[in-house]
Amino acid sequence: MAYPAPALLDKLASLLGAKGFTRDPGDMAPWLSDWRGRYHGAAAAMLSPATREEIVEIVRLCAAAQVALVPQGGNSSMVGGATPDSSGEALIVSTRRMKRIRSLDAEAGLAVCEAGVILADLHATALAAGRRFPLTLGAKGSATIGGLVSTNAGGTQVLRFGPMRALVQGIEAVLPDGSLFEGLTALRKDNRGYDLRQLLIGAEGTLGIVTAATLTLVPAAAGRAVAWAGVASATDATRLLRHLEAALGDAVESFELVPKSALDLVLAHVPGTWAPLAAAVPWNVLIEAVGPNPDEPLSRALAIALESGLVADAVVAASEAQAQAFWRLRDSISEAEKKDGPAAKHDISVAVGDMAPFMTEAAAAVEARFAGTRVNAFGHLGDGNVHFNVRAPEGAGPGWVESIGEEVSAFVHDLVTAAGGSISAEHGIGQMKVGELARLGDPARLDALRAIKRALDPANIMNPGKLVPPVDPMEAPSFHQSLAQKGVRP
Amino acid sequence: MAYPAPALLDKLASLLGAKGFTRDPGDMAPWLSDWRGRYHGAAAAMLSPATREEIVEIVRLCAAAQVALVPQGGNSSMVGGATPDSSGEALIVSTRRMKRIRSLDAEAGLAVCEAGVILADLHATALAAGRRFPLTLGAKGSATIGGLVSTNAGGTQVLRFGPMRALVQGIEAVLPDGSLFEGLTALRKDNRGYDLRQLLIGAEGTLGIVTAATLTLVPAAAGRAVAWAGVASATDATRLLRHLEAALGDAVESFELVPKSALDLVLAHVPGTWAPLAAAVPWNVLIEAVGPNPDEPLSRALAIALESGLVADAVVAASEAQAQAFWRLRDSISEAEKKDGPAAKHDISVAVGDMAPFMTEAAAAVEARFAGTRVNAFGHLGDGNVHFNVRAPEGAGPGWVESIGEEVSAFVHDLVTAAGGSISAEHGIGQMKVGELARLGDPARLDALRAIKRALDPANIMNPGKLVPPVDPMEAPSFHQSLAQKGVRP
Repeated sequence: MAYPAPALLDKLASLLGAKGFTRDPGDMAPWLSDWRGRYHGAAAAMLSPATREEIVEIVRLCAAAQVALVPQGGNSSMVGGATPDSSGEALIVSTRRMKRIRSLDAEAGLAVCEAGVILADLHATALAAGRRFPLTLGAKGSATIGGLVSTNAGGTQVLRFGPMRALVQGIEAVLPDGSLFEGLTALRKDNRGYDLRQLLIGAEGTLGIVTAATLTLVPAAAGRAVAWAGVASATDATRLLRHLEAALGDAVESFELVPKSALDLVLAHVPGTWAPLAAAVPWNVLIEAVGPNPDEPLSRALAIALESGLVADAVVAASEAQAQAFWRLRDSISEAEKKDGPAAKHDISVAVGDMAPFMTEAAAAVEARFAGTRVNAFGHLGDGNVHFNVRAPEGAGPGWVESIGEEVSAFVHDLVTAAGGSISAEHGIGQMKVGELARLGDPARLDALRAIKRALDPANIMNPGKLVPPVDPMEAPSFHQSLAQKGVRP
Repeated sequence: MAYPAPALLDKLASLLGAKGFTRDPGDMAPWLSDWRGRYHGAAAAMLSPATREEIVEIVRLCAAAQVALVPQGGNSSMVGGATPDSSGEALIVSTRRMKRIRSLDAEAGLAVCEAGVILADLHATALAAGRRFPLTLGAKGSATIGGLVSTNAGGTQVLRFGPMRALVQGIEAVLPDGSLFEGLTALRKDNRGYDLRQLLIGAEGTLGIVTAATLTLVPAAAGRAVAWAGVASATDATRLLRHLEAALGDAVESFELVPKSALDLVLAHVPGTWAPLAAAVPWNVLIEAVGPNPDEPLSRALAIALESGLVADAVVAASEAQAQAFWRLRDSISEAEKKDGPAAKHDISVAVGDMAPFMTEAAAAVEARFAGTRVNAFGHLGDGNVHFNVRAPEGAGPGWVESIGEEVSAFVHDLVTAAGGSISAEHGIGQMKVGELARLGDPARLDALRAIKRALDPANIMNPGKLVPPVDPMEAPSFHQSLAQKGVRP
């Protein structure tokens, strides 16, 4: 890769105009760090094309000049996936001006969205047409369709509808040689060779820039019911999920696990929160069901679970305000944990049926190995995916993660790998996990990833340094390296 | 590629033993032609390994010697995908001895099957555990899991459950360098880079040999209802599907379109068949719904459709025998068509909502362009996939397809491509469609397919000549070339 020559920058400036090209440090600054403030990079310019044709031209010019491109949507990556490196050679390609929903067919249940459409905007537009896009997550106000596709985003509705991979019916993308891949037509069946759509989903911009996607819309929910239940163990939580699915079928859309420790943190650190149940329980679950009148079957199923002793206590939200209060407890865990002290965080998955015993055993192993640590594992139990966070011993200073986080994380990732699980369930690899992937990935898989990357992007201009594991793990940034960089803004 | 040296054949013979190695022409003969008798090839030997370790060893030896391997399951490809070329240099790798269902977890809804497990055997084993594998097709008595995965097979339940791509939760495969990709763990969420599982599904053995897969099982159907309905147009058939889905939701599992012409062929050529409806209608649909008692809601929904005039007549099967008779009408169309005379066949898809108008317009265009031809388009309307067969003019001899089939098929494929559709909805590319894919594929897509193939199989030893479009379409066999070869067995 090379620093873009002045002539190339001039060409790009005239191609994109004032709205689409900037080198102004003040304009660029917010886009050179990730939203958590852990990764900091530099760029020669920031490009904000308005059309796919402009992206084609950008990629052609940069492929010829071997200049690196870093695609960026809402800049809400959890793993530094949209932050350029510190060389200053790269160009950021922001999709923020490509905000058009090209079409929305309510009857067919399809929306064609440009890459820069913000998730919350798609939610609102779909709802106005009596439909909904059934994927949501905390960053919905900034996350874009292009980023969600490129990271195969998950969230709290994967249980019923799957991640982006299951919701993308078509893709349009500019490949690393500047060719346009036109695959937006929603074909339910298409066996014309390797599935490039699935290959681009989750590729984190390393195989091209997604410019638009055709997405599945489902009927708007007629109603929703939200409940909070207490159980004795994570295994009982899994049993409760099976019981609810048998009773309500597809109506169960969310099933989030909240251990007592997480609830206690929220109640201690987030003002205006209170415990939904009268007595504390070791494990809580937040349940959301949809349908014409879901309160009734959900209440009935929970009553049966109470009677059988599977559930210690349960309450169905009596109002939308109470439903929101329950969700706020779940959504505030990260914030509360942060206020309480440092933690080494992990986004892991194992087979759904294995998660309950894995959590229990892994937590015990971690706490035995690192004295004083406390595991806070919560989240998408129904998907076999929890956020397995290891909190520092009480009183540990802010340098705890820097000093021992690397070792803790390696220990956790080793346990996950031994259980056949994934060290990145939904956040992707980005730059944060590329070293761990190199260290722990199945060699056949790693070789295949590298070969595919070399084949489609031989000059390595597409989001270099992200996702593709280096041959030598030592070449990658370490898992918690970003913390050491803190404040070292270029 | 090279002819296998005697020393290599000796090594393979001693590795695999008498059950796993043969060069006997009589033993090999059934596996050198496809089941329709259209493609004929030759092989230096046929290997039938019993374990994945043996496949690893086979691939390592053959990669080193640059000897071609043709993976074969049930040999039921519709596009010559499992037939070696005529050079006689290739080795057939049959998975027929790898028939073990390694595990079946009814509660989790998962079965781990070796590649050689026959579809009907999986159906029976799952049923005995109160579960079912929700994909079926005509060749279920011979088609194997490895072949179904490698061709992303479809069938008559795609409407509700999707094709293989949606049912495979894990894959184990030997890659072209002989490395073993171990990805059988069913992770609902896994974002560790490019999705190799999805890349191997539908790769037709050109990127490696699938040795096992983890498959989704669903609860066994409590009951099923099968109905036959008559409508005035293909568009009304689409409307009927939407009406039934609104009324019955996911319970509608099959929705097959049968035009009057197809039903007439079956009634004329297949003994013991009769028309389900009292009066002939232009279009028929076969509907299957499942559930605890699906007759009742299906009857009710059809009654509403009758009342509104959407349906001309309808009958719900009153017995299992009648249900089977309805399905027999649908399943006998190909056989009846064949008895009636020659036809040029096409397996196409467009967007679901576009299929009804496309069928009507494309049929008119074909019949106008090729005087006397009659289009017989039938099948999976709910998936936007029909088998669009162009029957020869009355009285045409058996040489009709040879003389003009090429031109007819090019015309049909041009229409499909112009409509944004696929020239292979479910049958794959194999050797039959590789020329048409080269001629009609989006250049960006074709370049990407070739680059991926070169990257993962640089010596081109994995099922060479299949799926990957040659740069010059003239290098590929033409669409109907197989017919010209008839009887020219090597």
